[in-house]
Amino acid sequence: MTRAVFLAFEGIDVSGKSTQARRVAAAHDALFTFEPGDTPLGRDLRHWVLDAATPMEPETEALIMLSDRSHHVRSVIEPTLTAGRSVVSDRFFASTLAYQGYGRGVDLALLRAASDLAIGACVPTLTILLDVSLGVVNERRDHDQKDRFEAEDLSFHERVRQGYLELAQDDGWFVVDGAMSEGEVARVIDERVARLPW
Amino acid sequence: MTRAVFLAFEGIDVSGKSTQARRVAAAHDALFTFEPGDTPLGRDLRHWVLDAATPMEPETEALIMLSDRSHHVRSVIEPTLTAGRSVVSDRFFASTLAYQGYGRGVDLALLRAASDLAIGACVPTLTILLDVSLGVVNERRDHDQKDRFEAEDLSFHERVRQGYLELAQDDGWFVVDGAMSEGEVARVIDERVARLPW
Repeated sequence: MTRAVFLAFEGIDVSGKSTQARRVAAAHDALFTFEPGDTPLGRDLRHWVLDAATPMEPETEALIMLSDRSHHVRSVIEPTLTAGRSVVSDRFFASTLAYQGYGRGVDLALLRAASDLAIGACVPTLTILLDVSLGVVNERRDHDQKDRFEAEDLSFHERVRQGYLELAQDDGWFVVDGAMSEGEVARVIDERVARLPW
Repeated sequence: MTRAVFLAFEGIDVSGKSTQARRVAAAHDALFTFEPGDTPLGRDLRHWVLDAATPMEPETEALIMLSDRSHHVRSVIEPTLTAGRSVVSDRFFASTLAYQGYGRGVDLALLRAASDLAIGACVPTLTILLDVSLGVVNERRDHDQKDRFEAEDLSFHERVRQGYLELAQDDGWFVVDGAMSEGEVARVIDERVARLPW
């Protein structure tokens, strides 16, 4: 049996990635899942890393994200793929490299090693990055409801964006201009994912 | 100002390390602390890694232990040392290498990198290992109350013990025979710690 498809969507919060990830999962009868937090342990960890009231160093934040991912991989993603069903995840390992590495300045080499510990051999078939400029971020983001990441200033989001673009270049991701209309983004994504071995 | 002393005690649960760590901390007016769990975040993480009812892969267990340690270092140990007060910790980075690395078979090189991410430059002035044989473990352990580690069989504890001994050899720890009487163990430890720059 061919291994099922594992598709990861990446991008900053206002990029539209969650909408697209859910849509693609539904279209291909794949399991939609997300990080951080899509397990009982994950929900608890998610509370700690997103709750802006808890002071936390970037290394701790990174390790909690990796704990969540490690559990998510082994209890949700791998068993689903092994059973022959495809998985579409809203965020995966690149989020930690982009946010905690490029965004917060955590040592990238150590972070990659810890990330390898977390995911083992579970790498996406394809990663799709929805890239949006800071202008779009500023326009779309909700200035009232803020978690630990949404509360960061624009320079943080710019570092995360540049990190994502570097990773996309190095790893051969599919990069989509998230400033386009939702329908146009969907069309570009569908063209690419139609070629995956669903 | 000379940096204060950071002393770590290691060993398996029945080795008597906690008793000795508390005693030495009190004698030198040092802060006594422990892992996992001596912070609000840590207490929550401790629940997940010690609760035997939650299925969890060794890599996840390791990353949660490292999340706890990372937070403990930055919110408790480093601030105390920087303020000039010594710290005595019941378990530190070696516990993760011994239990999850040697005991559970998690990749040691990746684990060391992730451990470096967790502790940064915060390394103990001295690590004391209370070594006990499996005979002593079997004799002393409580067969009723078991967390995830206490519930493991003797071969697991033997791998942890051998891991500890290898690490002690490589890193130059002070190894004490935990099979001796509590008073004798205390005497041997006091002789050694009297030479630290408290």
